[in-house]
Amino acid sequence: MPEIKINHLAIVVENIEDSLTFWRDALGLPMGEVQEVAQEQVKIAFLEVGESHVELVQPTTESSGIAKYLAKKGAGMHHVCFEVDDIIATLQQMAEKGIELINETPRERDGRKYAFIHPKSTSGVLVELYEILPD
Amino acid sequence: MPEIKINHLAIVVENIEDSLTFWRDALGLPMGEVQEVAQEQVKIAFLEVGESHVELVQPTTESSGIAKYLAKKGAGMHHVCFEVDDIIATLQQMAEKGIELINETPRERDGRKYAFIHPKSTSGVLVELYEILPD
Repeated sequence: MPEIKINHLAIVVENIEDSLTFWRDALGLPMGEVQEVAQEQVKIAFLEVGESHVELVQPTTESSGIAKYLAKKGAGMHHVCFEVDDIIATLQQMAEKGIELINETPRERDGRKYAFIHPKSTSGVLVELYEILPD
Repeated sequence: MPEIKINHLAIVVENIEDSLTFWRDALGLPMGEVQEVAQEQVKIAFLEVGESHVELVQPTTESSGIAKYLAKKGAGMHHVCFEVDDIIATLQQMAEKGIELINETPRERDGRKYAFIHPKSTSGVLVELYEILPD
């Protein structure tokens, strides 16, 4: 049986500092790094929770996809990311089952391959897949 | 540092059997039990993912809270549940930080204490807490 786990839950927030009152201070999740991802026009905070992470995502412009999502739907859960051993095999298995893929072949960044699955095929949940590449 | 992990992600679905095409067959999560919870007018399927679970929830009547949620918002993520060592201490810490609690004292069922946190205080995510009681 291939290994699979929740890599992270991504939550869109208005303001990371304000959100930390709950996620870091009240729930007590250990705070990881905060990154500015200029290319995607967001700031991101990672908090550890067991073998997974909570990722808080704050738009830094008003024109990005995430900023429009926040304006339309408000703060809340954005997607869940599952880490798999072999993303190519997983995507192929999904295609065979008729699952609608946003990325039919994985993209690659920062030491991982990733792809998104369309919420139409997942009961309304935006799902991301990760395969962490060896160093 | 107290232990904390994601116990489960709860996803509201129209039909569990249909949803399993993605969650069990395409993503490959091992299927646990399916329960009929008459008291809450739902059917529930548990699938294993690492140290956590995905919980698919299907309303079995049209009058329950979950049925109304589904009718209004459609299928998708409903809540995320974090398992903590000491739910009383966690709720007390939250109250001290000004977090709005749905259940100020935990409820108890099936060998666990649980409480919900208001999305107003969590950047829009309905959060549940679990403390698993010793056998």
